[in-house]
Amino acid sequence: MNAATVIALAAAISAALFAQQEPGSAPPKARTMAEVIAASGPADWRRIDEANTIYVELESGRVIIELAPAFAPQHVANIKALAREGYYDGVWVVRSQDNYVVQWADPDGTREIKTGRRTLPAEFSRAMAPDLPFTRLPDADGYAPQVGFSNSFPAARDPTAGRAWLAHCYGMVGAGRDNDADSGGGTELYVVNGHAPRHLDRNVTLVGRVVKGIELLTSLPRGTLPMGYYEKTEQRIRIVSIRVAADVPAADRTPVEVMRTDTPTFEALIESRRNRREEWFKVQAGHVELCNVPLPTR
Amino acid sequence: MNAATVIALAAAISAALFAQQEPGSAPPKARTMAEVIAASGPADWRRIDEANTIYVELESGRVIIELAPAFAPQHVANIKALAREGYYDGVWVVRSQDNYVVQWADPDGTREIKTGRRTLPAEFSRAMAPDLPFTRLPDADGYAPQVGFSNSFPAARDPTAGRAWLAHCYGMVGAGRDNDADSGGGTELYVVNGHAPRHLDRNVTLVGRVVKGIELLTSLPRGTLPMGYYEKTEQRIRIVSIRVAADVPAADRTPVEVMRTDTPTFEALIESRRNRREEWFKVQAGHVELCNVPLPTR
Repeated sequence: MNAATVIALAAAISAALFAQQEPGSAPPKARTMAEVIAASGPADWRRIDEANTIYVELESGRVIIELAPAFAPQHVANIKALAREGYYDGVWVVRSQDNYVVQWADPDGTREIKTGRRTLPAEFSRAMAPDLPFTRLPDADGYAPQVGFSNSFPAARDPTAGRAWLAHCYGMVGAGRDNDADSGGGTELYVVNGHAPRHLDRNVTLVGRVVKGIELLTSLPRGTLPMGYYEKTEQRIRIVSIRVAADVPAADRTPVEVMRTDTPTFEALIESRRNRREEWFKVQAGHVELCNVPLPTR
Repeated sequence: MNAATVIALAAAISAALFAQQEPGSAPPKARTMAEVIAASGPADWRRIDEANTIYVELESGRVIIELAPAFAPQHVANIKALAREGYYDGVWVVRSQDNYVVQWADPDGTREIKTGRRTLPAEFSRAMAPDLPFTRLPDADGYAPQVGFSNSFPAARDPTAGRAWLAHCYGMVGAGRDNDADSGGGTELYVVNGHAPRHLDRNVTLVGRVVKGIELLTSLPRGTLPMGYYEKTEQRIRIVSIRVAADVPAADRTPVEVMRTDTPTFEALIESRRNRREEWFKVQAGHVELCNVPLPTR
């Protein structure tokens, strides 16, 4: 298929998407997101998996990251090992690049590792499998043949290649690496703080997403060196500690539930964002992009 | 065209896009963005239009917004009038909503207006016209039949309807409004600080984009009330003044050039982002989304 055909198809699909917003074509049970959430029941939510959740403690508060062992099992295990041995306690946010990522690391790269590993084989994508949940978003995506949601994480698939991977939406967390694909491992973690850099998909191992406290990271001053690195060491922000949530005494845990993404309620939520019924809206988009679908927490 | 056909087309186009990243299919003159910019000449850049640029002076520094009179002539004229009469001097950033917008306003809405207007007819879109520049992005977009760049602003078009409009990418600036379409006018301005909320396109009047200093706005603490409003008045950030750049003494102006978007250099820049040739990248996306195309400034 050549570029002209691609463009023709793009025009056709765009026309089709736009046709969906004709007056009268809205589904009969059109609801706003607020109405969808208000009508949700206990089965529409799940408690985050605290055995695979980390608390990033900053002096300003707690950032909660749910990890995704289904997509990056080795990285998740290593991050938990590093957290448990105290590797991250006292590392620094060294980089805050506007509209891209905020990242923490041992600036010198010399901190001792006891039980974890410094590098791991890349986990950029994994094999598709029947037991890997995937609620497909019908809306077209330019970066992947299929996009959708897997256990409340934004994800993508290529059925031809038989591969699935997590997608770089706002708030997703990845393992920084050098040029070698296998040079990451989780000692440096970054969080997406701007428009989804989807070109990073399958180029770096995503390990999870921030489910609470992201504003503590996204509001940090931007670094002025290339790639947003802080110029002066005193500008860095200290990571007080990183703990596996399940290891924290119950009284000190933060209860968080995320909306399940394999339910009719979630399908209704997607539709509530594809076509906005709030009175304020004058034109409905007739489309929703993967990274514009909220993944509610409470 | 029904939903199944749309999905089939989506699959076809995705497959086509992916096919473009086969080894050997890269264009012969593949370059990185850094190489494209390094090879650019004076004709690839233009000085921002200082007659249609405002300086937003915060205590932390200057935010520079180039206005887009081709798309919102009445709003741009009104914002300049409001700036010239001092309306904005001493208003406040009242809202900072994570992954959405930061917004300033007169919190009480009672500030006197002398030469400007409080509200204006909506300028959500405009008629397409031969004299309106448009460099079309061939990559598919879900929110509009056509997307591209008009005089260094991200934009969209619907040829069937004969309309063109600006797109809500990161850093775009709009005029807040109430539920009535014509209830805005520029007294309240917002800046997109997260993933592009493209569902706002054609629902609100976009007036320009931040070309310098956006990090002063995007790093502000997030408000804790609904929609990111600050809970306490002392949390608000003061707008010291807003001035039309052309009115500022030459010695106090900040020279800024933006890359033109109607040149072969810009086409090369787009391609450099569609398929990343830096050594770090292992997989090329074969696609670039409108709001992932950088609009370089210097």
